[in-house]
Amino acid sequence: MIDPEAFLDLANQVTKLKMWPYFDIAHCVMCCLAVREDLGAGSIPFSRKHPIACWLSTMMVVFAGGFLAALFLGEPLLEPFRNTQSVLLATAVWYAMFYSPFDVVYKLSKFLPVKIVIAAMKEVYRCKKVYDGVNHAAKLFPNAWMILFITGLVKGNGAGFLKIMERLVRGVWTPTAFEFLQPSFPTKACIVASIIFVLDKKTELISAPHALVYFGIVIFFVYFKLSSLLLGIHDPFIPFENLCCAVFFGGIWDSMQRAVGGNKSTDSTAKNEVKASKTEDGQTHAHKKND
Amino acid sequence: MIDPEAFLDLANQVTKLKMWPYFDIAHCVMCCLAVREDLGAGSIPFSRKHPIACWLSTMMVVFAGGFLAALFLGEPLLEPFRNTQSVLLATAVWYAMFYSPFDVVYKLSKFLPVKIVIAAMKEVYRCKKVYDGVNHAAKLFPNAWMILFITGLVKGNGAGFLKIMERLVRGVWTPTAFEFLQPSFPTKACIVASIIFVLDKKTELISAPHALVYFGIVIFFVYFKLSSLLLGIHDPFIPFENLCCAVFFGGIWDSMQRAVGGNKSTDSTAKNEVKASKTEDGQTHAHKKND
Amino acid sequence: MIDPEAFLDLANQVTKLKMWPYFDIAHCVMCCLAVREDLGAGSIPFSRKHPIACWLSTMMVVFAGGFLAALFLGEPLLEPFRNTQSVLLATAVWYAMFYSPFDVVYKLSKFLPVKIVIAAMKEVYRCKKVYDGVNHAAKLFPNAWMILFITGLVKGNGAGFLKIMERLVRGVWTPTAFEFLQPSFPTKACIVASIIFVLDKKTELISAPHALVYFGIVIFFVYFKLSSLLLGIHDPFIPFENLCCAVFFGGIWDSMQRAVGGNKSTDSTAKNEVKASKTEDGQTHAHKKND
Repeated sequence: MIDPEAFLDLANQVTKLKMWPYFDIAHCVMCCLAVREDLGAGSIPFSRKHPIACWLSTMMVVFAGGFLAALFLGEPLLEPFRNTQSVLLATAVWYAMFYSPFDVVYKLSKFLPVKIVIAAMKEVYRCKKVYDGVNHAAKLFPNAWMILFITGLVKGNGAGFLKIMERLVRGVWTPTAFEFLQPSFPTKACIVASIIFVLDKKTELISAPHALVYFGIVIFFVYFKLSSLLLGIHDPFIPFENLCCAVFFGGIWDSMQRAVGGNKSTDSTAKNEVKASKTEDGQTHAHKKND
Repeated sequence: MIDPEAFLDLANQVTKLKMWPYFDIAHCVMCCLAVREDLGAGSIPFSRKHPIACWLSTMMVVFAGGFLAALFLGEPLLEPFRNTQSVLLATAVWYAMFYSPFDVVYKLSKFLPVKIVIAAMKEVYRCKKVYDGVNHAAKLFPNAWMILFITGLVKGNGAGFLKIMERLVRGVWTPTAFEFLQPSFPTKACIVASIIFVLDKKTELISAPHALVYFGIVIFFVYFKLSSLLLGIHDPFIPFENLCCAVFFGGIWDSMQRAVGGNKSTDSTAKNEVKASKTEDGQTHAHKKND
Repeated sequence: MIDPEAFLDLANQVTKLKMWPYFDIAHCVMCCLAVREDLGAGSIPFSRKHPIACWLSTMMVVFAGGFLAALFLGEPLLEPFRNTQSVLLATAVWYAMFYSPFDVVYKLSKFLPVKIVIAAMKEVYRCKKVYDGVNHAAKLFPNAWMILFITGLVKGNGAGFLKIMERLVRGVWTPTAFEFLQPSFPTKACIVASIIFVLDKKTELISAPHALVYFGIVIFFVYFKLSSLLLGIHDPFIPFENLCCAVFFGGIWDSMQRAVGGNKSTDSTAKNEVKASKTEDGQTHAHKKND
């Protein structure tokens, strides 16, 4: 068995891990990969024809959390660009990922063992960002729980929320892609992490030492990222969500209504749980329920 | 006849009316009704499938004025979320309006006598918001009349200006729905109210006691809301607008030009007033003139 | 030959040129012309049917740089409206340009000799804006080079970056019109000017007296504006861009790859330089290369 002392020690070390520059690089690499995947087959031609738009959209992904947090907390929107060094680093990574001879850097970063290391580092970085976000907001608005939570969330997964705008910079418009319509796993994980950090900071509910809480969330992030990469498990939250939807968001009542009242005027409600209907609200949505 | 003393007394009491929590609740209920109406038949399925997007879009409607005013005045965008209590209240109302068993709360709020009371309260609340907006801006920018006016306007009818964004959160994109293309009655009423409050605050033009001015605007708001609900009179401003358009915005000159110059190069101008043309500017617009 | 003393004197005078109100008027006129051109044949009917949207979209063009700089630097978004006088001036120009009897003001401003003078004044104004932007940002963020540069850029050509939003106000949605996808000449010129001003301010690289640098940029702006108006030379940067793209953004490597590796998996890359492909990234783009 692992020694508790040693474990706490390890946790403490993880808490104090220096991010700059290796974790920053990992973050930038993952962001570039995301942009290139989003561009699909057109990524190379696009980067050749529109280098500035390509650079800007990559920067928006890299610093998404910073931009959103700055906007939400009333700081200058360009706050993340204040540190010229980190902009230069991100630009260097962007350049290497898009314009390296024979695309060698990109291909290397897609090589599974390398990708696993980078992805794991990015998750450690993400956890740090959520934590920093909550702490930074707590300094400005000590009692505004909602703001603490939201800042943590957008710092952790800002790119998800800026996706629509980032695509617009590339001339692509996807109005139905708002993150909360189909929250991705990182968003859900950041929601949970942000709530835990807020509770840890503002209440006595969590009795574990702070370093352990932090370390637990790091492990949670890394574990599910690796599951996703290696085993293809993309969303372990779905069972909880279905339960939650059934209990809190109308599931049970809707069933009861169907059982009791028949399908009089509540026809459209009744059908909802049986089969998510594509046309009822005029758009295509992925089905949240496992059907 | 009513006693002037008593009337002024009443006006004074209206000025000091406490908003929290009943008027806040009325405001939230009206906002939820607006979101549900905007969702149409798909409101129930949407609320079941996308509870977070539904919540966020409702919050955007409820706190629209606060968000816009915060952005415009350089305060943190999340300022309205600073007060956790009012977020919780709005969330509770949202929950009751969307997920109550058998939709009973929603049906109750649609019941005419109830709706009239809530709508009237919401208008009182709106007037207070416009007034607070002008005053708040006046503290920050004492001499910037435009900013005072705009803050009052967006505080009074922020939801109208955020409508495009709020729909985007729900995955619906309506680029031609910008409020000023076809200003709704509340927008126009808020324009008038905001101008009056600015004049009352910064000039000596309005000699009536402040409480009377405030009370007058409250009555104006409530009266036209009730007219709209009960009598179906939706926009009493139209005659004034037509007059204003004719005198200031080219109406008379265009007619004169048509009379004098014939339809040489100004053909498209000439046709304009006779019949609002659907295709000339490439989109569909409602006709402002009564034709 | 021109006397160096007298030349420096002239440069100094240009540096200290008073902008208010004549250069402001020239700027407003050019902005109104831009809005009217963007509206095309529908400009007159639109201005009659939607005066408020027309006014707002014109104000967004006139104060675009101010809005963006305020947002980016964390100042109140309505900062440009603080000065009521300049809003009134812009409104007066807007009114004259859209609603003058027989459209006389608009026609006059399109008359070539008049237009040349106004356009030249606007370029002088633009240079001043870039310079002021860099200086203003330097006061707030002395060491954030990126922020200095971006502020100078958006102050110089803010309208380009707000174009999408400004059109949205008019109910027109053009998601592929983001400035950086096909940077216009003013954008490129402002990029160069902003870089030079930042270098001049923060480094010792530029040894020329400050007034000469400023004057040089003014001449550069005015010269190319007049070339564009009189000779139809729209973008003198293209040769440099092609060179830059070939050297830094993959051109040479892509050619080498084609020569060495054949068209195995890199087929889409190889085709790129020969012919900009319309469908590869799913949209229509103007070709940056001269083909």
